[in-house]
Amino acid sequence: MDDDRRHFLRAAAAALAASPWLGANAQTGVDTPHPHDMSQMPASWTGKEQIGMVMYPGMTALDFVGPQYMFASLLGATVHHVAADMKPVKCDTQISLLPTATFSQVPENLDILFVPGGGAGTITAMQDASLLRFVAEHGRRAKWVTSVCTGSLVLGAAGLLTGYRATSHWVTTPLLAEVGAIADKSRVVRDRNRITGAGVSAGLDLGLTLVGILRDTLYAETVQLLAEYAPQPPYNAGTPRTAPPEAKAMLDDMFKEFNPMARAAIRKSPGGGAS
Amino acid sequence: MDDDRRHFLRAAAAALAASPWLGANAQTGVDTPHPHDMSQMPASWTGKEQIGMVMYPGMTALDFVGPQYMFASLLGATVHHVAADMKPVKCDTQISLLPTATFSQVPENLDILFVPGGGAGTITAMQDASLLRFVAEHGRRAKWVTSVCTGSLVLGAAGLLTGYRATSHWVTTPLLAEVGAIADKSRVVRDRNRITGAGVSAGLDLGLTLVGILRDTLYAETVQLLAEYAPQPPYNAGTPRTAPPEAKAMLDDMFKEFNPMARAAIRKSPGGGAS
Repeated sequence: MDDDRRHFLRAAAAALAASPWLGANAQTGVDTPHPHDMSQMPASWTGKEQIGMVMYPGMTALDFVGPQYMFASLLGATVHHVAADMKPVKCDTQISLLPTATFSQVPENLDILFVPGGGAGTITAMQDASLLRFVAEHGRRAKWVTSVCTGSLVLGAAGLLTGYRATSHWVTTPLLAEVGAIADKSRVVRDRNRITGAGVSAGLDLGLTLVGILRDTLYAETVQLLAEYAPQPPYNAGTPRTAPPEAKAMLDDMFKEFNPMARAAIRKSPGGGAS
Repeated sequence: MDDDRRHFLRAAAAALAASPWLGANAQTGVDTPHPHDMSQMPASWTGKEQIGMVMYPGMTALDFVGPQYMFASLLGATVHHVAADMKPVKCDTQISLLPTATFSQVPENLDILFVPGGGAGTITAMQDASLLRFVAEHGRRAKWVTSVCTGSLVLGAAGLLTGYRATSHWVTTPLLAEVGAIADKSRVVRDRNRITGAGVSAGLDLGLTLVGILRDTLYAETVQLLAEYAPQPPYNAGTPRTAPPEAKAMLDDMFKEFNPMARAAIRKSPGGGAS
């Protein structure tokens, strides 16, 4: 590396070290690394993005926290965890997350609107008029409209996926046609400014994809290395194609009431044709 | 599939559908799937595990929520989110999670003790006498002692890794020798009842590994399929070996104050030789 390149890297590293990951987050008085000078940071590496991540009861915490890790790595961005009110949001795995803002407190023009998925809680969200209104209004203006897992059904119920290619959890991709979307079974699907991810764990891939879009490849690669995101699943059953038929049969049976109920919720929603 | 097998799968699916993922989590009065009969469930698929997941300020939320998704899939298990007190725990990416129990409220004999990692917050945790006492006491009795990322440094500071092979975030694996552990750069390292994971995202691999150990392969494969855990990182920079040298140089620089401070914290800890 030449001296200029080295200088750039040191400045960027200093800025990253000043981010909440390390320096700014000490909670007690004991020794921790202290913030660095950010003044030498290349301008293109710091943004001013306003990111709105929607929360609702029964959402899947991992759908939310995977992308949140990646969005929080965007220097200069503000990440809002947005819910109907400020009460803790209990997720489907029984962990509770705290909102940082209510629907009415979020900036009007978001750079990213993000909606996580879930099970029964997502069907409830698809029937929640004020949540759908928030998603529809901010989705019309947001630079990027994004989701993970069954979050795409919420985008669809809000009328945001009509005519767009999109994905969802593999169980629910057949429902995408009900909201006028074109189902695509890819891991992360980008069609114009809509970016949707497959089930649950796809949130890491979606989030890192957005980091690359909003910054650059080297920035995203650095975030990937920080997350040590070189996955090695101990089994090879992550898709219906590779899973044993028994596993697929079990989940098909487990979800046999889910899709009809989700379909009914869609049909009563703006995105399903109701007004 | 023969009829017996089919019957088994239907019973298992019914039990899974009754779990918090779907039925038990409806938060409002609208239509959601309702719980199923669990009585036909094969006994080997339901456990009574008590799982203690340690929380501390500045931990990395994704370190925690990845394994939490997997542990919550264990039918019959109780997952405790354990902190010094019941206040929300603010993570390094600025998201707050709620504990469900304090250190004094957790069952004496845990099946799994789990410690997540983080940045500056982890150095603080390594100097927190009451947290180290909780980890040391429960770790001596727990069936499985586990961590993700720099959580292994907390296990080590508590004196639980002496003579064990273990891993950590790639930045901090050189520190494992300071707590008497044998550093191993694998994604998930199992040595007797110690199971440690590499950085951040390795929590998904660690959690799924434990599901396979506590139940069986088909159960773990079903959980993997439910999580659609077939990762497709958009870049190939998840390890120092595959990342561009610039990304590695940037993080080495970012962490250049971290390792000396973590080393100093270890030396003052029980696991580092202090008494």
